[in-house]
Order: sequence, then structure tokens, then C-alpha cells
Amino acid sequence: MMPLIDVCFSPELLHLYELPGKVVVVVDVLRATSTMVTAFAHGIEKIIPVSSLEDCLNQKQAGYLTAAEREGRKAEGFDLGNSPFSYMEPEIKGKTLVMTTTNGTHAIRLSMAADKVVAGAFLNVGSVAAMAKAEGKDVLVVCAGWKGNFNLEDTLFAGALAERLKNDFKPANDATLAAQHLYRLAWTDKAAFLADSSHVKRLKNLDITKDIVFCLQEDVYDVIPILENEILVKLQPVAVT
Amino acid sequence: MMPLIDVCFSPELLHLYELPGKVVVVVDVLRATSTMVTAFAHGIEKIIPVSSLEDCLNQKQAGYLTAAEREGRKAEGFDLGNSPFSYMEPEIKGKTLVMTTTNGTHAIRLSMAADKVVAGAFLNVGSVAAMAKAEGKDVLVVCAGWKGNFNLEDTLFAGALAERLKNDFKPANDATLAAQHLYRLAWTDKAAFLADSSHVKRLKNLDITKDIVFCLQEDVYDVIPILENEILVKLQPVAVT
Repeated sequence: MMPLIDVCFSPELLHLYELPGKVVVVVDVLRATSTMVTAFAHGIEKIIPVSSLEDCLNQKQAGYLTAAEREGRKAEGFDLGNSPFSYMEPEIKGKTLVMTTTNGTHAIRLSMAADKVVAGAFLNVGSVAAMAKAEGKDVLVVCAGWKGNFNLEDTLFAGALAERLKNDFKPANDATLAAQHLYRLAWTDKAAFLADSSHVKRLKNLDITKDIVFCLQEDVYDVIPILENEILVKLQPVAVT
Repeated sequence: MMPLIDVCFSPELLHLYELPGKVVVVVDVLRATSTMVTAFAHGIEKIIPVSSLEDCLNQKQAGYLTAAEREGRKAEGFDLGNSPFSYMEPEIKGKTLVMTTTNGTHAIRLSMAADKVVAGAFLNVGSVAAMAKAEGKDVLVVCAGWKGNFNLEDTLFAGALAERLKNDFKPANDATLAAQHLYRLAWTDKAAFLADSSHVKRLKNLDITKDIVFCLQEDVYDVIPILENEILVKLQPVAVT
């Protein structure tokens, strides 16, 4: 029996899915999981995902770096925001980061009952696919969405991963089929496909087109952030297939 | 300002939407709303949508026809099931039907806070579009889904309606854009597009391919079931544009 790949379009639907026994891939393309992948690729040691600004701020005393995003902007009083470019500096090497974002960190925390929880993005989609094949368990892509709503960019990632896995995994449900159809329409020019999407418009108003273009690139990094004891660490690199 | 058309992929996400001031189009293509449209086209006078089998059975004493579907089959002890072909008989003329289905009637009951709640299906999509244009209010398509999960056939209906309204309404969100993309892929042969979908496979196992083919036809009827005091009645016919 082939393992299944399923897609959950919103954290608000996560109660409909069985998590134990599965590999969950949490995705928040714009920009939480893209930023996490970038940070690990540039040497960060641990990321502690927290849901609230308060929890994030409370950990500052412990000497950790803090990152917080709300409404697409860096929240005041924190060291870093949600742009991947802020995580390419040598200063982050070996550090522990406490991070809260509008959607992504919350989705990760909700997925903890799964066998494995990893952070996926276009930036590391090949490595995530290779890891899923090696595991051989059912995969559930959890789209962070936007405040509970369906979004296109996370759906496209789900479609990209399903396409990479199509010879080894079976679509579990209609959500996977829809994601694959949409990715096949979009893959030649994802930025153009997403131009009318709600979050891309929201981010363009904040003038971060550079971040969007960066986050839509596939297979830039081979690192996979994985949850261990509620903390994200770097999984040993897996060869891109 | 153009009115908006938004799509809610599951009743489980309905709490994210504001209903007052909107026209809600509830859709359960396979087969609850297709069946309701067919029943009104063949002379039924009222349909009382109820959520539970118990509520449905309790109304039998009042002399009403009862219809109940669970897991795609007619539930035992009721007069009718969920096949549109059962509602083409002259005997239903002038009757009141109490109806419960796995997804559709539940979605209708959850939508009651909207200004207007109508039942949409491919069978009456042109009339629903004409009615929405005449109303000029924001439209929300509520997909009944399958036990809370996203499904393709209801999404295709949402895409079809958004396409019919595209010169007069603006997509509110990514869900509408996704539905339109999928409908544009599917419209030339919806049955083929849906062949791998979960509910079509489920219904094929029950040997009701004839129902599926019937429910995917556009603009067969010009009737619109509309909710008035928690009961569905027939809205005056609107010309298909």
C-alpha cells in the first residue's frame, strides 16, 4: 500500500485529521517557514515557536533572540521580524531564536501530536520530499493560511510537494487533488499566478516584493527544521532527488 | 464599489465569515442542493431542512414527506433519499418535505444569519447568478463539503458562479480565485475532472453514476430554493442571463 498525502487548508480544520502516525509538513510560504528554513541554512541552532507576543517577550530574559510578526510587520520590542533576509547575517550562527508569527508558529504548535513535524517551504521542498519518501509514512501538509482562511501560496506548496511525491504517495483526498491542479497551473511563474492573491497584495503594500520573489524559489536550501520537544532543530541534510 | 464574491470551503470555517448583509449560496452538488432544486422544479411546495435523523422522523407525524441520507444512502424508515430522480414524480406536487443529509442541510441551517440564504447547484447556476446580480449584495458561497472536509465538486460550483459574476463582482479572497482556476480547468468535462475525487468515487461505489451526470449539468432549471423562516420555498423565477 502506497502511503497517502493529504492537505489541510487551514489550522481551523486540523481537528478533522488524525495526526499520530503521520509526518506533518507545516507550511507558511509567506513567510514564517521560508524564514525558518533560511535561518537554519545560515547557522541558527534552535527556534522555539510560540503562539503569543507575550510568550515570545517572556523568553527574552533567557538571553534568546526574539522574532515577532503581526499583520505582516515586525512587532515592536523584538530583535527580528519575518523577512528571510534578516536571517542571513553571521550573527545568528549558533543562536537560539524565539519566534511568533500570525499564522505559522501557531500551526506548528497545533500539529505537535504527529509523529514528526517539519517546516516546509519552496526553498526546501526537494529535501522535504526526499525525507517523506525515506520515512514512508502518510504525510499531511498543514497550510498555515491567513487567520484561519485558505490561501493560495501555501496551497501551491502543498501541490508542489504532492507533485514531487506522486510516484510514491497517493492523494488522500480532494484537497490534495486541488493543490496539484493549482500548482500545475502556477509552476512556470508562481509570482504571476499569485499576483492577485490576498497575501501577496497585502505584502506588496508593505513593499516586500523582494521577500516574495525569494520565498517562491524552489530547492535553494537542503535543511529541514524539525520539531523535537517543542523546539525546532535542524534535521540532518537529505539529498535532493 | 463592486460587490464581493467569497467562498467558504467548509461549514467548519463558517465562523470566520460575517453573514449579515450577505447573500449566502449553499451548495452541495452531490446531491442535496441539486435534489432540492429538482424537487422545486417538479412542484414541491416547501422543504424543511433539519440536521438530525431524529428531527426528521419527528416531523413525519405532521403528515410531511421525509427524506434522509447518510453515507450516500437513503436512511431507513424515511420516504425518500437524496437522488434527484426520486423527486421527478407527480406525487410530490404541492407537498412539504422534511429533509436531512450528511452535509447540505446542516450547511443551510448554519447560514441562517445571512440576509438571504439560497440553495445553488449547477442545475440552477444561471438563475442564482441572475438573482445575485439583481440583489447587488456581497455573495458568500458556502460549500457543504464532506463531513467538514474540502471537496472538489462544490468548489467547482463556486468557480462556475464566480465566472458568471466576474464582470459585476470582485473575488473577495484566495478561495474564490482558486475556485475559478479549478472551474476553468474542469468546465469542458466536469465528470472527467471529478473522476478521481473522493465523493465521486464514494458515489460510484453506490452505483449512482446517473445521478452524478445529471447533477453536473448547468442551467437545467430556473428555480431557486430560498430560506424563509427556516423553511425553503421557491423564489419567483429569474431569467437566466
